[in-house]
Amino acid sequence: MSIQIRPAKQSDVGQILTFIKALAEYEKLSHEVVATEQQLRETLFGDKPVAHVVIAEFDSQPAGFALYFYNYSTFLAKPGLYLEDLFVFPEFRGQKIGKTLLVYLAQVALREECGRFEWSVLDWNTPAIEFYRAMGAMGMDEWTVQRVTGQALIDLANTQV
Amino acid sequence: MSIQIRPAKQSDVGQILTFIKALAEYEKLSHEVVATEQQLRETLFGDKPVAHVVIAEFDSQPAGFALYFYNYSTFLAKPGLYLEDLFVFPEFRGQKIGKTLLVYLAQVALREECGRFEWSVLDWNTPAIEFYRAMGAMGMDEWTVQRVTGQALIDLANTQV
Repeated sequence: MSIQIRPAKQSDVGQILTFIKALAEYEKLSHEVVATEQQLRETLFGDKPVAHVVIAEFDSQPAGFALYFYNYSTFLAKPGLYLEDLFVFPEFRGQKIGKTLLVYLAQVALREECGRFEWSVLDWNTPAIEFYRAMGAMGMDEWTVQRVTGQALIDLANTQV
Repeated sequence: MSIQIRPAKQSDVGQILTFIKALAEYEKLSHEVVATEQQLRETLFGDKPVAHVVIAEFDSQPAGFALYFYNYSTFLAKPGLYLEDLFVFPEFRGQKIGKTLLVYLAQVALREECGRFEWSVLDWNTPAIEFYRAMGAMGMDEWTVQRVTGQALIDLANTQV
């Protein structure tokens, strides 16, 4: 039995959308998924890829995926690697595929001279947080993301200051 | 009196470093700043710019800056605009320069077809949070960033799974 991690290519967009929908279903957020194969193709494999995807295969079967992009630290003047989503199909859990993906991404971060490797977790997900602590992660507990989206974003852009 | 917002150019790296150091001093985190002009030049104005900077001028004087990059939503299959840092020199406060920068960035987000405009705030900074709420921002209160950096990142990359 073997785990292989590889960068996704354009022909994987159908598989990537399957992963995204499975993740959304797991989070009971299927209604929020409006992504299409074409949009994934444009934003991930077009002229200016915004994010990157790696696929984990278990015995040559697609088993999980991770999507990441680069953020930035002004104090370090260095990029960081931010893991937006990581998902392993339920039938492939318990094979350390998630951990293999995290270690792979830590290696990408070092190779790309990133100062940090970051991701987010729900603050009530204690087992996950304990797992991340054991991996050396620290929680940026005082910080909260503020999000403007939809009509609020349009309104803000049209604000007369 | 007038506020002008403009994208930073390579010749602004000295000014950008001045902003970053002033921000760090304001946050009492000067000891964490290891950024240099050369690193800023490479990461912001090299072949693959990781982040973008805009500068606010008040009556043609450099008064504030914002640094942002693009993140990604898998559910939307769209980029988002993430504001990493925003700072206005103390002597220019009260002129709505910060708000002008936020409105400018909301316009950039719409132009770049972003689904979201996001930034982070310290969760005890109630006046800032109330200001953001009034602008239409919602707090992603359940989410906490996990960060692996320094030796922990090297150790993670070298983990045998």
